[in-house]
Amino acid sequence: MPADDFIVTPWHVEGEIDYDKLIKRFGTEKISNQLLNRIQEFTGDLHFMLRRGIFFSHRDMSVILNEYLKGNKFFLYTGRGPSGHTHIGHLVPWVFSKWLQDKFKTKMYFQLTDDEKFFSKPKLTLEETKKFAFENALDFIALGFKPENTKIIINSIHIKTLYPIAAQVAKKINFSNTKAVFGFSNETNIGMIFYTSLQSAPCFIEDKPVLIPLGVDQDPHFRLTRDVAPKIGKPKPALIHNIMIPALQGPGGKMSASDDNGTVYTTDSPEVVKKKINKYAFSGGQPDIEEHRKKGGNPDIDVSYQYLRIFFEPDDNKLKKIYDDYKSGKMLTGELKAILIEKINDFLKVHQKKREKARDQLDKFLLENS
Amino acid sequence: MPADDFIVTPWHVEGEIDYDKLIKRFGTEKISNQLLNRIQEFTGDLHFMLRRGIFFSHRDMSVILNEYLKGNKFFLYTGRGPSGHTHIGHLVPWVFSKWLQDKFKTKMYFQLTDDEKFFSKPKLTLEETKKFAFENALDFIALGFKPENTKIIINSIHIKTLYPIAAQVAKKINFSNTKAVFGFSNETNIGMIFYTSLQSAPCFIEDKPVLIPLGVDQDPHFRLTRDVAPKIGKPKPALIHNIMIPALQGPGGKMSASDDNGTVYTTDSPEVVKKKINKYAFSGGQPDIEEHRKKGGNPDIDVSYQYLRIFFEPDDNKLKKIYDDYKSGKMLTGELKAILIEKINDFLKVHQKKREKARDQLDKFLLENS
Repeated sequence: MPADDFIVTPWHVEGEIDYDKLIKRFGTEKISNQLLNRIQEFTGDLHFMLRRGIFFSHRDMSVILNEYLKGNKFFLYTGRGPSGHTHIGHLVPWVFSKWLQDKFKTKMYFQLTDDEKFFSKPKLTLEETKKFAFENALDFIALGFKPENTKIIINSIHIKTLYPIAAQVAKKINFSNTKAVFGFSNETNIGMIFYTSLQSAPCFIEDKPVLIPLGVDQDPHFRLTRDVAPKIGKPKPALIHNIMIPALQGPGGKMSASDDNGTVYTTDSPEVVKKKINKYAFSGGQPDIEEHRKKGGNPDIDVSYQYLRIFFEPDDNKLKKIYDDYKSGKMLTGELKAILIEKINDFLKVHQKKREKARDQLDKFLLENS
Repeated sequence: MPADDFIVTPWHVEGEIDYDKLIKRFGTEKISNQLLNRIQEFTGDLHFMLRRGIFFSHRDMSVILNEYLKGNKFFLYTGRGPSGHTHIGHLVPWVFSKWLQDKFKTKMYFQLTDDEKFFSKPKLTLEETKKFAFENALDFIALGFKPENTKIIINSIHIKTLYPIAAQVAKKINFSNTKAVFGFSNETNIGMIFYTSLQSAPCFIEDKPVLIPLGVDQDPHFRLTRDVAPKIGKPKPALIHNIMIPALQGPGGKMSASDDNGTVYTTDSPEVVKKKINKYAFSGGQPDIEEHRKKGGNPDIDVSYQYLRIFFEPDDNKLKKIYDDYKSGKMLTGELKAILIEKINDFLKVHQKKREKARDQLDKFLLENS
């Protein structure tokens, strides 16, 4: 990797991502103002994640809207690789999906890929990833989804439904394709090699168009799916991509559930959140207060500000005031962190209650096995 | 392939197989007279397929018997790739398995790999291979297995039971391994690449030693399984291999369900059997009767004689008489074929009745889904 470059694959994100470059590299489309206006015609307002470019790229979003206009309603599909507890970065596409679901009154499928994380993490057992799948499902349910229009798929549990669909996909993908798209080598295990067809499967679980809100690192899977779709007589899935959520330590990777210090988990206590943000959140401030008052901070690289922008401060006016105050030096890093800590803990207080309530609802969300 | 050479893989058999060479190439052990005597100590008699070297090679058969003596009973596992109707060649390991089951009072698992045949045959759909799986199951049941100690596994139906086991195996096999063992290339589809782990899975379905009677062409799958077993804390499967059953047209391949004229199906009518044997069965006889009377025929290359030896004439004395009479020229090719036709049709008359009865029993044989 050249010094100024970056890597984005479903299993590895490294370097400072240039999203315009990434759009070119992946061959996706930037979300234009025209597209935003078009979405707003359907939704009435725009989710702040759209207004702020947290969702920045797409594939065939216009096709989805055209079909919707014709009465050919899409369904939503997103997911999570359960390698650990949910962190706040994971919630970004889920919260956005909930908004889309409410606005477009669609069905939603949520896939937990316990097999993938077993194949890709040498030390994790399938029992462990399955346990995390159930834990992660609670966070998803806690966001307000309803079992009437939302189904949770856990790969090892719902494999009977997924496998016959995955088989259609797998027959049309060869090892060269996976080398080109994921960088697989002769040393890659055959579970990993096959796995992408299982991530494709929910795209074809209903005979309707599908829209997938997801972190842009997952795009390669669906590039393969989109190549295969016409070969098996199915519509290509449409995608809408969010940026990678930075780790607490700042740019140069995505927040990862496998690094405790770089991550705020939805299960963290208020004390732990406070400690993590204060100790690890990368600051855009100056080395000392005097210099900060004079030169001001840089919110664009400050992780606390970014978390507010990405997730915790939906109010644009409030966010702008924080931006301006931090940039001018009026607001100190400690003050900015205090705002974020309060926001996170307020959110988690409610979320953790809903999360516990979700344990009793889980069964109603699980896809019926065929 | 050099002119004097041969190919044996699970999906392709070509050339005249030198079984002693194959034993060296695959690294298996020839079944010695010592081992035959040892088996006989357990079974009282020896199945004619053992006496005649139809089963000719093994891996760890002695370990299986040692463990059995210690009270650590094995279970049996064999299977079939349902690419078409069952032909009489398929019955060889099944009939032999039934004998082993009766002698050792063991449990038996029978796997129908509808997914494999879907992945490996460009023109077959999964619906078609699944349909053949059910048809093939009838032939298996018709051989006299009992649902109390025999379970049928159909991959697409029992994937929920198989997949978590297959995943343990798949994590320990990389693409290089499948290249080396199966000759896979970058163009091989990812379903095929993953598939071997599903053929391994039944080996670990019970926490006991397993013995697999099977055509020697299937050995490569279990070479991988045997490498993986200790890595996942399981015993290595033991194998006992039968020779390839020649196609009607004679040596140079195995009987294949995809070549109608080279194959006698269990569903063939007496007229069709008669026609196929008379028209296509490769003859070891001389060009005309006079020459045949003078020089005699060659039973060692005559397919009709081979079918009697392999399956249809269990009586060694009767078989020897046929051998001698054909070799001396006393028996003509037409007479030899007539014997075989009668034997096959006698067998199929009973088999086809049992096969139809099996339709009602099928559900009782299917493995319970976990």
